Amino acid sequence: MMNKGKIYVVGIGPGNMEDISVRAYNILKNVDIIAGYTTYVDLVRDEFKEKEFYVSGMKKEIDRCEKVLELAKEGKTVALISSGDAGIYGMAGIMIEVAADSGIEVEVIPGITASVAGAALVGAPIMHDQAVISLSDLLTDWDVITKRIDKASEGDFVISLYNPKSNGRTTQIVEAREIMMRHKAPTTPVALLRHVGREDQNYTLTDLEHFLDHEIDMFTVVIIGNSKSYVKDNKMITPRGYKL
Amino acid sequence: MMNKGKIYVVGIGPGNMEDISVRAYNILKNVDIIAGYTTYVDLVRDEFKEKEFYVSGMKKEIDRCEKVLELAKEGKTVALISSGDAGIYGMAGIMIEVAADSGIEVEVIPGITASVAGAALVGAPIMHDQAVISLSDLLTDWDVITKRIDKASEGDFVISLYNPKSNGRTTQIVEAREIMMRHKAPTTPVALLRHVGREDQNYTLTDLEHFLDHEIDMFTVVIIGNSKSYVKDNKMITPRGYKL
Repeated sequence: MMNKGKIYVVGIGPGNMEDISVRAYNILKNVDIIAGYTTYVDLVRDEFKEKEFYVSGMKKEIDRCEKVLELAKEGKTVALISSGDAGIYGMAGIMIEVAADSGIEVEVIPGITASVAGAALVGAPIMHDQAVISLSDLLTDWDVITKRIDKASEGDFVISLYNPKSNGRTTQIVEAREIMMRHKAPTTPVALLRHVGREDQNYTLTDLEHFLDHEIDMFTVVIIGNSKSYVKDNKMITPRGYKL
Repeated sequence: MMNKGKIYVVGIGPGNMEDISVRAYNILKNVDIIAGYTTYVDLVRDEFKEKEFYVSGMKKEIDRCEKVLELAKEGKTVALISSGDAGIYGMAGIMIEVAADSGIEVEVIPGITASVAGAALVGAPIMHDQAVISLSDLLTDWDVITKRIDKASEGDFVISLYNPKSNGRTTQIVEAREIMMRHKAPTTPVALLRHVGREDQNYTLTDLEHFLDHEIDMFTVVIIGNSKSYVKDNKMITPRGYKL
């Protein structure tokens, strides 16, 4: 009888071989095939040279999952990788949905998501209650997103914005800022975290009024503080409430 | 001249040696001293037997940071550990605040936080916009917390509740449920994730109406879905919106 395949959906963290979990690393080392979006596979290719790879392009998520399922049905163990955590705007959900009723086991391996890695870089901006919102309206109605930005601002959450902007999508971040300005002070600290975990990682500390004056692209995570957040010595802190 | 000490605030993930990042592992291996709350130090003690440890009790966070700073000033490299991610309800913020103006460098090493590890265990419940809220009112006014629960529910966020309940704190989760019921359907899926990452990890899938009928303690993370979340084959999924 042929061995039964298995699918791991693996969050590889921000994209270097240090912020990956030990479990994720060992799984990538032991599976038959590593599958993923081209850019993410390129991040791990050097480390796992001996592997077989299956790559596919952006917006091909369903095709990719169907191919991974097919490989698992042939008896292969396959790691489908996502950058960050696979369960946060990654491939975990869609892979489980595609594999439903197939009899193939899908195991999700958690990873360090971009806002957490970015927060560590800039200090401790998300020490208190937080909301995480994607500004991509490819799969979600824009009015659902704007309502969430509004409610999160009203609730004085620290807000992390994923997918703030791309070449074809530039107005969402402008509108998001306007909504946040209704409830948050213009002086609220904002961290722009670029290419987190990559060699060229860098950040800018600014504020809600001025952050659009700085470079933001699709590899930027934007963290907007709550009413207690502050900047000191080029670090952003959201205090938890300890009396110092 | 004496070597200058340095402080790493290290998120060790949910508490096993597999879900820790490679970077965090190597830092624990190389520092002079590992410091932390007793329970967390016990999680790493076996793996790093040869180390010097500094442990302190719960609610001694400021004392702990002051001691760590003192050790660093003596030229030691010290890893102050938090379970999960040090920047999410962990020790990163308070350590940076205590070390401010000391000239001692503090570097935050990100980790996998409990809701992310728990989500992976139960499927893909936080694939879409999420709010993370701690129900502990030791350091935060309860009316700030209830407002956040209300706004996050109104915004149809997936909600992860940290510190839902302890021996001395049992009413907050009851009130939280009532607030969520104002905006979310009683059938909204709820995952109770217990002792995530430990040997005895387990979960219960239930719904917003009934989740208080099940065991919840301070080591439980409660994930409440959004209006699209569903349960299938004992997994909880919040779809991102792909058309299957």
